[in-house]
Amino acid sequence: MSVTLDHPSEASRAETRRVQIRAAAADCFRQRGFHGTSIAQISKAAGMSTGHIYHYFENKEAIIADIVAQDLERSLTLTTELRSASDVKDAMVERAIEGVEHNLDPSSAGLQLEIVAEAARNPHIAEIVRAADQACRDSLADTIRIQRQAAGHQDSEATIAGMVEALIAMFEGLRIRTIRNPDLNQAAVVQVFRRMIHDLLSQTP
Amino acid sequence: MSVTLDHPSEASRAETRRVQIRAAAADCFRQRGFHGTSIAQISKAAGMSTGHIYHYFENKEAIIADIVAQDLERSLTLTTELRSASDVKDAMVERAIEGVEHNLDPSSAGLQLEIVAEAARNPHIAEIVRAADQACRDSLADTIRIQRQAAGHQDSEATIAGMVEALIAMFEGLRIRTIRNPDLNQAAVVQVFRRMIHDLLSQTP
Repeated sequence: MSVTLDHPSEASRAETRRVQIRAAAADCFRQRGFHGTSIAQISKAAGMSTGHIYHYFENKEAIIADIVAQDLERSLTLTTELRSASDVKDAMVERAIEGVEHNLDPSSAGLQLEIVAEAARNPHIAEIVRAADQACRDSLADTIRIQRQAAGHQDSEATIAGMVEALIAMFEGLRIRTIRNPDLNQAAVVQVFRRMIHDLLSQTP
Repeated sequence: MSVTLDHPSEASRAETRRVQIRAAAADCFRQRGFHGTSIAQISKAAGMSTGHIYHYFENKEAIIADIVAQDLERSLTLTTELRSASDVKDAMVERAIEGVEHNLDPSSAGLQLEIVAEAARNPHIAEIVRAADQACRDSLADTIRIQRQAAGHQDSEATIAGMVEALIAMFEGLRIRTIRNPDLNQAAVVQVFRRMIHDLLSQTP
């Protein structure tokens, strides 16, 4: 269903509604799982009619697509900022704390795990998640390539891809860690991650 | 419900049944999620009556506990073997491939993600998962401590805990990677992981 926007205040009202629906849906997905959540429950949690929900989102998959798009935008902003730093390696080491904090946040982690668990059985969700992942990997690969070339290293594309996977695995793995070990020492994790990122980006090919 | 075992063949028949139920339940959890799976569906998938299922497992949580216990046993066997290697660091680098292959297996990954997503909202499952995680962390910490002390390094307990979390995050993160990027280059990941484990365990405090 398309939304006709006549003037800026209407556009901003529409965005506010989408944010409200996204937050309500995220709560429902976390609590009951994607499968166990109905549009009726999301409408109740958002305090809107189901008609209103359908005005903005065709179905539950469309809400997931919106959540995934938000997360991708955050990742692309970060990798773009890292790429334009005067010392990319220092910036990646320095800003590791942001990635650790973001991925250890239990409510964000629970939602992301629910989305990936659903992607493992739902081809439509899998398609959404994989397209976003590809865009994120490409941007991180560009960032690493720039850093490595500036440092005079000649890596194969397979090595760059391996580095990208290992870096993303470390950070995404924290989403599992925060559920399995809610008492983990965040400061100690940041310290070890910083050393590992530094060493990874300093490797001779 | 307790099971009375009179002789070995009965014990082995009981174990065979448990293995069958576990496998059927794992398939159901992967396909429909923990929440969306009933004991009736597990009984149908296992080709047994529901009474039979209840003879071996009190409820769905008990089946999850059994799956988690199996996974823990596998981890403890590995960390114990690593600990008794003549060169612990070399053994951890060498055997990284086993952890990569195990965690990248999509059906195992899907099940593990389902369990941790459920743990994020179900306090009983969370308790099971966290107890197993604690045992796994303790064993890996012992392994790393032995390696580091043998190499003459004096680490704080926080550093050891940070190393444990980082190592587990890398490997568990692969469960998410295999869903988000099913085409990832496994050989490249193994190569980068080996270097990272080597560098992590070689760090000066």
